[in-house]
Amino acid sequence: MAGKVTLKDIAREVGLSPTAVSLVLNDRPCRVSEENRRKIKEVARRKHYIPNQIARSLVTQRSQTIGLVVPNIESRFFSSLARRLERGCRERGYALLITNSDDSPGTDAELVRLFANRGADGLLVVAADEPGSNGALADALSQLTVPFVLVDRLIDDLDCDKVAFNNEYGGYLACRHLLSAGHRRIACVVNTSSNTGARRLQGYKRALSEYGIDLDERLVLESAYYIADAYAAAGDLVTTDATAVFASSDNIALGLLKRLYEVGLRVPRDYSVVSYDNSAADVLFEPALTSIEQNVDELADAALELLFRRLEEDGSENPVPFERRVLTPRLVVKDSVRAAVAPSFSSSACVPTA
Amino acid sequence: MAGKVTLKDIAREVGLSPTAVSLVLNDRPCRVSEENRRKIKEVARRKHYIPNQIARSLVTQRSQTIGLVVPNIESRFFSSLARRLERGCRERGYALLITNSDDSPGTDAELVRLFANRGADGLLVVAADEPGSNGALADALSQLTVPFVLVDRLIDDLDCDKVAFNNEYGGYLACRHLLSAGHRRIACVVNTSSNTGARRLQGYKRALSEYGIDLDERLVLESAYYIADAYAAAGDLVTTDATAVFASSDNIALGLLKRLYEVGLRVPRDYSVVSYDNSAADVLFEPALTSIEQNVDELADAALELLFRRLEEDGSENPVPFERRVLTPRLVVKDSVRAAVAPSFSSSACVPTA
Repeated sequence: MAGKVTLKDIAREVGLSPTAVSLVLNDRPCRVSEENRRKIKEVARRKHYIPNQIARSLVTQRSQTIGLVVPNIESRFFSSLARRLERGCRERGYALLITNSDDSPGTDAELVRLFANRGADGLLVVAADEPGSNGALADALSQLTVPFVLVDRLIDDLDCDKVAFNNEYGGYLACRHLLSAGHRRIACVVNTSSNTGARRLQGYKRALSEYGIDLDERLVLESAYYIADAYAAAGDLVTTDATAVFASSDNIALGLLKRLYEVGLRVPRDYSVVSYDNSAADVLFEPALTSIEQNVDELADAALELLFRRLEEDGSENPVPFERRVLTPRLVVKDSVRAAVAPSFSSSACVPTA
Repeated sequence: MAGKVTLKDIAREVGLSPTAVSLVLNDRPCRVSEENRRKIKEVARRKHYIPNQIARSLVTQRSQTIGLVVPNIESRFFSSLARRLERGCRERGYALLITNSDDSPGTDAELVRLFANRGADGLLVVAADEPGSNGALADALSQLTVPFVLVDRLIDDLDCDKVAFNNEYGGYLACRHLLSAGHRRIACVVNTSSNTGARRLQGYKRALSEYGIDLDERLVLESAYYIADAYAAAGDLVTTDATAVFASSDNIALGLLKRLYEVGLRVPRDYSVVSYDNSAADVLFEPALTSIEQNVDELADAALELLFRRLEEDGSENPVPFERRVLTPRLVVKDSVRAAVAPSFSSSACVPTA
């Protein structure tokens, strides 16, 4: 490999001090003639000089990098989010460095510290999603001296910029759609150990309640956001009398469908399904899944807007107050729900709610 | 946000110099008693001291970070690779910083420079895949002073550690499987503007040639590695008399299937398909795709082994020579190929090859 060209090498060649060369190459004010400035830059270019960014960061205090922490880069939702954020950062002259916390609440906090230590100018953080377990993350974030935005998964009692979708409303939309198609025995396969899942479940319950339907706990099936988990939950589903399922993520829907298809059951023939995320559209078209869409681009753009507003006001005496932005998911109707013969509405409504 | 705790704060509290505190916290040799060492570390812990990694990097010359450049983080193959690499780095005490070049040959070179400037200890690089366009990347890499490994997509004339799958053999396996099932009119949907695609096509041709079958250029259909591209290519496929298709990536297979299903054609009833990557198994089970598997874990582990061997020999006078490691893909048989009535083998073999 070629030896690294240093400031001293350039200084020697142009006959000026390394300090002068450094100031010129960092575009800092100094008493160097226009001719010498040109000469320095020309030599630096010719010799493929790579500035030592570590040293430069100490001078400029800006590294032109943004750090992103995601829980699972393998998930299509987060990898799409990362890609959109990367483009947005690049358009603004920043590089995005992505890290994966592997859904581990300790690791997300460590990664935040890592970025702080490595001089990132700002952070975008999707928390590892376990309610009550993000104390370490909240600690790490509250010690940051650079701007950050919590994205998608929020920590309620941390005062900062945040943006997420309304998960309760998404769950409500999904269940209401199945109810309006006439279904009354609607299962919910949900990750209750996550904040997002718990809220989607709340929405499911609200819709049932609006239709005067009692919650049947046997129809609430637990599954983490992994295909294998939902595949297991599908075994319980088929023992119930449900005619419809709210699958609270695309991975959950995929796991369910895989098991159902294996035992000869079909969607929507045997089960009507509403999924969540609408990220499986590219890969699943038999049937195409009716789903609650969380627009990744909208989330990424909002996160970048909040972050760069903060970066731009850097040092302002009247900073904008912290903002909590809530985005609205929407129902995308495809082929996985069919109309059911509804039992008489009044008879359902007569069942006393617990 | 909490004010940042500095070395001086700790020094004041323990009654020692900031230099002594710095040396102790960086585990450098110095004349500080065991008792004072304990005291310093205890205070640092209690006050949530975050070492200034930028400054520390200048001293230790190690940042404990590895940089990864991938072309498309949205692709399941690369996001799985990133996740496995992240775990492997973490197990070795390193953090992995992931960047996305968006399949742009200029950008991958920039990202390499960025990591060099930001003091990464080593790099893992998947080139943006356009033959002949990676001169900028080769330049950036050859100027690096830290170890790096080229992963999955190689630059032939760059002398460095590299690891990739044998794409020619993968294409050969795929086509041979269809031939052995009796198919003779086998289309190949391939990204010929990529190195990997061009080699898979070579393998396809070799298998045809072994069976004495003339190449019919009308059966070679161009598609980039995106679902939408393959969806378009499927329109051409249905105008041919092919009975089988070698889809040279899972995305290509997904795009083909989507279009075929829309027009009422089914796999394997109407077309036998062999795909590539075997990454769609989780999401596609109707039919499950027979595919050429490139084991991501194997690729990640080999890349890490090459990189960390280099990091460990740092400064050795007898470095290990650069290694080019070639991994072997394997055929995974599922449900997307059915036996065809083969034309008499001897009659095919009689067709003169061009």
